[in-house]
Amino acid sequence: MTTTPSFPTRTHNFNAGPAVLPLSVLQKAQSELCHFNDTGMSVMELSHRSKPFEAVLARAEAQLRTLMGIPSHYHVLFLQGGASLQFSMVPMNLVHNTQPVDLIHTGVWSKKAMTEIKRVTDVRVVASGESQQFTALPDLSGVGFNPDAPFVHITSNNTIYGTQWSQFPVTSAPLVADMSSDILSRPIDVSQFGLIYAGAQKNIGPSGVTVVIIRDDLLTRCPHNVPTMLQYRTHAENQSLYNTPPTFAIYMIGLVCEWLLSLGGLPAIEGITTARAQRVYDAIDNSPVFLCPNDASARSSMNVVFRSKTGDDSVESAFLAEANRRGMVGLKGHRSAGGLRASLYNAQTDDAVSALVQLIEEWGTH
Amino acid sequence: MTTTPSFPTRTHNFNAGPAVLPLSVLQKAQSELCHFNDTGMSVMELSHRSKPFEAVLARAEAQLRTLMGIPSHYHVLFLQGGASLQFSMVPMNLVHNTQPVDLIHTGVWSKKAMTEIKRVTDVRVVASGESQQFTALPDLSGVGFNPDAPFVHITSNNTIYGTQWSQFPVTSAPLVADMSSDILSRPIDVSQFGLIYAGAQKNIGPSGVTVVIIRDDLLTRCPHNVPTMLQYRTHAENQSLYNTPPTFAIYMIGLVCEWLLSLGGLPAIEGITTARAQRVYDAIDNSPVFLCPNDASARSSMNVVFRSKTGDDSVESAFLAEANRRGMVGLKGHRSAGGLRASLYNAQTDDAVSALVQLIEEWGTH
Repeated sequence: MTTTPSFPTRTHNFNAGPAVLPLSVLQKAQSELCHFNDTGMSVMELSHRSKPFEAVLARAEAQLRTLMGIPSHYHVLFLQGGASLQFSMVPMNLVHNTQPVDLIHTGVWSKKAMTEIKRVTDVRVVASGESQQFTALPDLSGVGFNPDAPFVHITSNNTIYGTQWSQFPVTSAPLVADMSSDILSRPIDVSQFGLIYAGAQKNIGPSGVTVVIIRDDLLTRCPHNVPTMLQYRTHAENQSLYNTPPTFAIYMIGLVCEWLLSLGGLPAIEGITTARAQRVYDAIDNSPVFLCPNDASARSSMNVVFRSKTGDDSVESAFLAEANRRGMVGLKGHRSAGGLRASLYNAQTDDAVSALVQLIEEWGTH
Repeated sequence: MTTTPSFPTRTHNFNAGPAVLPLSVLQKAQSELCHFNDTGMSVMELSHRSKPFEAVLARAEAQLRTLMGIPSHYHVLFLQGGASLQFSMVPMNLVHNTQPVDLIHTGVWSKKAMTEIKRVTDVRVVASGESQQFTALPDLSGVGFNPDAPFVHITSNNTIYGTQWSQFPVTSAPLVADMSSDILSRPIDVSQFGLIYAGAQKNIGPSGVTVVIIRDDLLTRCPHNVPTMLQYRTHAENQSLYNTPPTFAIYMIGLVCEWLLSLGGLPAIEGITTARAQRVYDAIDNSPVFLCPNDASARSSMNVVFRSKTGDDSVESAFLAEANRRGMVGLKGHRSAGGLRASLYNAQTDDAVSALVQLIEEWGTH
């Protein structure tokens, strides 16, 4: 039985994460919340060691592998603690010599990664957007990456500053990417990376689960004195079932992946998200009131950052108030950057984007 | 609007965790899954820094404080990683001298805690049930606890062996309890403990969130070189919002606490769970076929362990098959202990217990 209760108009949700989820996914989860797949139980009540849950887990992994084309010599892990815990787990697992880690610094999140890596080993910032206040991405063409570095760290999309790499460097040392805010938004070549991690709450599902994709040869690097729960090999050897995983969040990832596959996979969603972002950027670029501070080549299709041309906070406050009145939430910029921000993850709707574009266009004529 | 969809008979769920949840809680979550509290969003889509979610978090904490009578000089934290990560976080945060940790060894989970503590410092096993195969709890009356130990570790309920402490030792060093499998099942005096931790998936909610209750003076002990995410002070200073918390799981904790309060709180639930367990123990004790191996004074009201008197596995297999035919799942003992086990957490139903008791009684007359 499918329950489709009536409910009021959906809010236009521009939150940076946790963020909007596909309505069809929520409705599916709702319809079977008390009774999952003829089990007579909620998916939340299933033992993580039961066949029905093992099928949920296997399906989520298989769908992620299909969507991203993950090669067979990579493990897919479902962990907890978000990207913030990965900032520590990555160096605890991958540092195997005394060479510094090479890090590409592009904003608040790469800085947080750097801080935690420095608790384990030295960091060499090989490129930084800091002198441009992170409104552009640093040029990597002249960077001499250290082939003996334990790893090279990059943040694929900078949620706060609204910049995004369109290409990734080719490195001899394993390339490690924090893809929390743009994973599954476009095809990437996984084989270019040693490790990819992402908190789920922006583009994959609800908060509370972290996806880690790790090349098998990196699983053996971890010193054995690292806490069992913080060793990737623990989770790889136990198919993410060493301890009780966040079962409901993994189930939700499976539903989101199924939805993405039904749309046509990552090439299709890339077309959709790119076009949606372009509509907003066009409205901003044509606005007499607002500007996007970011270099055109670096603009993110996930987080569109803009602000008043005059730097007048009251313009932004008035805009936010009117947006709110029209059913739009989450448009305030991150507290560390100020201004305005529209997050346009995969599940964003055309209706929400149309409402936003219309408001930006109207604002110039006030 | 409340949606109460029809669905088939609920399975009698004796899982050890994730475990049965109150049906009324699941129905409430279902009814508002797509539209939470007039937000026009699912609770999963709320920003963790928005007022609606802050209210969810504050309410869950307030209800936990009310239910358990948590003093104001304790912090309540909602973390990730389960008890398994706490095994490491506790010593990383609390070890502040070279004295060994005092540990009371009562089964598989205390052994796992010991293994992780030993990565940080030495452990002194002050009492152990190992010589009795953990069918009884060790006598603590003669134990000389070290007042200078960084902490004393105890497991309040042993999920696998089905034993449970009815009283806790009074110690000068901070008493740390893993209460994953019996938290909220009975009143306890929180002030007797330095720190209490519990994975939620047995008695508090779904998997994916860990509750930590910590006395404020212990927050300052942690060395500053510990990863930021693994310091309790990080989460205490940020009201569990340092990074994105598992928002949906915290919301579910709030609903479960609300349900417990509506029943009359912990004294009421203790009466219910104790009586339910007694019915099952009585059936086992009167059975010509089954026995409970555990000392009467140590028997758990949460996990009832039993087995065939003859040690004949085929009796247990046949029983499990018939139980399954009658809509009962999760009665197989843990793989490390064998036999049978019925988990009777707070949300267990009288119907399920009646079905089990009837089957045990019938089994003797075959």
